[in-house]
Amino acid sequence: MQLRFARRISKTKKSFVREIFKFLGDPEMISFSGGFPNPNSFPVDGIKEAAIKVLEADGANALQYSSSEGYLPLRQYISKRYQKRFGLEVDPSEILICNGSQQAFDLIAKVFLEVNDTVVIEYPAYLGALQSFGFYEPSYKEVKLTSSGLDLKQLEEALKDNPKLMYVVPNFQNPTGLSYSAENRLAIAELLKKTDTILIEDDPYGELRFKGVDNKPIKMLLDEQTIMLGSFSKIVSPGMRMGWLVAKKDIMDKLVMAKQASDLHSNYFTQRILTQYLLDNDIDEHIKKIKVMYLSQREAMLSSIKKYFDPSIITTEPEGGMFLWATLPEGISSMSLFQEAVNEKIVYVPGDPFYVNGEGINTLRLNYTNSTKEEIDIGIQRLAKVFNKAIKKTNSR
Amino acid sequence: MQLRFARRISKTKKSFVREIFKFLGDPEMISFSGGFPNPNSFPVDGIKEAAIKVLEADGANALQYSSSEGYLPLRQYISKRYQKRFGLEVDPSEILICNGSQQAFDLIAKVFLEVNDTVVIEYPAYLGALQSFGFYEPSYKEVKLTSSGLDLKQLEEALKDNPKLMYVVPNFQNPTGLSYSAENRLAIAELLKKTDTILIEDDPYGELRFKGVDNKPIKMLLDEQTIMLGSFSKIVSPGMRMGWLVAKKDIMDKLVMAKQASDLHSNYFTQRILTQYLLDNDIDEHIKKIKVMYLSQREAMLSSIKKYFDPSIITTEPEGGMFLWATLPEGISSMSLFQEAVNEKIVYVPGDPFYVNGEGINTLRLNYTNSTKEEIDIGIQRLAKVFNKAIKKTNSR
Repeated sequence: MQLRFARRISKTKKSFVREIFKFLGDPEMISFSGGFPNPNSFPVDGIKEAAIKVLEADGANALQYSSSEGYLPLRQYISKRYQKRFGLEVDPSEILICNGSQQAFDLIAKVFLEVNDTVVIEYPAYLGALQSFGFYEPSYKEVKLTSSGLDLKQLEEALKDNPKLMYVVPNFQNPTGLSYSAENRLAIAELLKKTDTILIEDDPYGELRFKGVDNKPIKMLLDEQTIMLGSFSKIVSPGMRMGWLVAKKDIMDKLVMAKQASDLHSNYFTQRILTQYLLDNDIDEHIKKIKVMYLSQREAMLSSIKKYFDPSIITTEPEGGMFLWATLPEGISSMSLFQEAVNEKIVYVPGDPFYVNGEGINTLRLNYTNSTKEEIDIGIQRLAKVFNKAIKKTNSR
Repeated sequence: MQLRFARRISKTKKSFVREIFKFLGDPEMISFSGGFPNPNSFPVDGIKEAAIKVLEADGANALQYSSSEGYLPLRQYISKRYQKRFGLEVDPSEILICNGSQQAFDLIAKVFLEVNDTVVIEYPAYLGALQSFGFYEPSYKEVKLTSSGLDLKQLEEALKDNPKLMYVVPNFQNPTGLSYSAENRLAIAELLKKTDTILIEDDPYGELRFKGVDNKPIKMLLDEQTIMLGSFSKIVSPGMRMGWLVAKKDIMDKLVMAKQASDLHSNYFTQRILTQYLLDNDIDEHIKKIKVMYLSQREAMLSSIKKYFDPSIITTEPEGGMFLWATLPEGISSMSLFQEAVNEKIVYVPGDPFYVNGEGINTLRLNYTNSTKEEIDIGIQRLAKVFNKAIKKTNSR
């Protein structure tokens, strides 16, 4: 028998991040690779109380089929939170519950993308989104990410052909940890207004700001044209796969059809438990604890980097989120050094998969949320050994 | 701003079953429309015990990210169950956990289908699968479903051009309730062996046989070429969205990539709770109770039909599962009578959405698992009023 796969899958590469998983079985391995939250931040007791409450009060309904849009009280909670955080009015009917933001990428691509349609992305861009869009075979236009947001000249250029979609992570971007300034958001909205481009504004880390002040979502400057994504993965639990998207009615109607065809609806049992947890607990208090944890982990990583890394290695200093982005001197490939790092029992994500055109070989992403301060210090020492040696070798050439 | 959706979505029709949901808010409405299990069958206490156990013993891990393939002990459980039920050997690595079988349709289509590729389907066919495949814009070839399985002449004809996929529900098919005989399965496997066609063998109801004897899966006759689907929706809980697919390694590799791009992995929190429930309870005992329930609901529906329906209305008498299939006299459209039925406070699913070419207008699907015996009797009386009147009118023309 001959296997006849679709063209779209033959274009899809195996995820490098998945490949890294293989190494995590080794108990001596320290990992800065995944985007895993600190498990100490999970509200295990609160979830347990919520699960008992839901199952005792309304168990049979919580286990039954439900609506494709998601559990209304959960969508109402999300709506109220936007109101409270930003004064942003989102009707619950404009919210669709998805399996994490990852499913939102797939649903949006399914509804909008034809082969070769253009998607404007950040440079570098979140690889999970690239992976998801990739199945719909778009072309990409990359716009450089600076310390205050998108390079506006490049953006103007990228928008000239009226691309279908544009995907951004304006708060503590994955992989760089960089955020967009208020001015940058305004300029982006102004440029987009002249197009029919749908902006996908992804915000998995926005709640995790431990320094500086929040900026309002671009959606508030570009309401009709924006699909906003959110997630409980980083503030409650990623294993629950609970995220959402916000879209205006005409778009939502199509997205709901795509959601229904994809898996009918998101896990209703979990939606019920999560909602109960959110209603019975002060999520702001919980998030405060996470932020204290992550700030101290970030400080630990930055201070170890200062201590051990060759000064020619530059890193971002994010005001929130989960990642640092490191840039090695020109010409040194973090991918080539990966195996050496594995031998030293330390893993990270090389920059390459975050670029669609095989660039950024001297960059890498470092996650600090899933290691203790001790592990962070040892891990950075191990990395320094590998990187500093490579730098010395290059310099002595 | 101009909205520019992809062509695939403009071809997608709104689901009629979703439209029916609107009427279910009326407390006097009796519904034979959905494929909802009887909520009395849900093991609420067992799930509660399992949730407490998992969260107390390993809560932080249960709330963390996990692997795209699914929780290994859950896949091992499924593997052992195939061994026990049929002597079928399935390695856990050949099992992928999905959000119900519905997501399996999407993943398989994503991995195999190009625009206009042929999918062989039953006539009539399960509309959820049609909806999911529809996004990938295939052509369909329909093969008539008889009381013992597929019409083999039509199947031979349909396989002539070596179609990419074939989708069947051999046990208590949705919508008809019909099952394939052992001979029919053998003949299907023989015909498929001469092709490169991948068989999708969907089995959401196979465990719910209350009469007759089980037939072995077609997969056992056509191992390499079959993707088998299964689900906990009908034996534990549909709200959990826990299903799986079984595929050989080469196919599985691609499906895992599609799964990862779609939503990273299925809800791990629920996988853990479900597994704990399955390990701590005797699922066979539980299924036995469901079968007693469904048999008595089926009997109630068939006996009310005999009492009230005009004898020109023919129904199937399934040996398991959740549905009866009714055929009105030639020329009477169940869709045209739908509004009249709503006025009488009874809803069903007209046959039309189960056919891709707008046929089967005189057929309808009746679900008996989500109504009490009293509701079934009243509902059938209401339906009889509508249908018998239409038949009388036609006869007197």
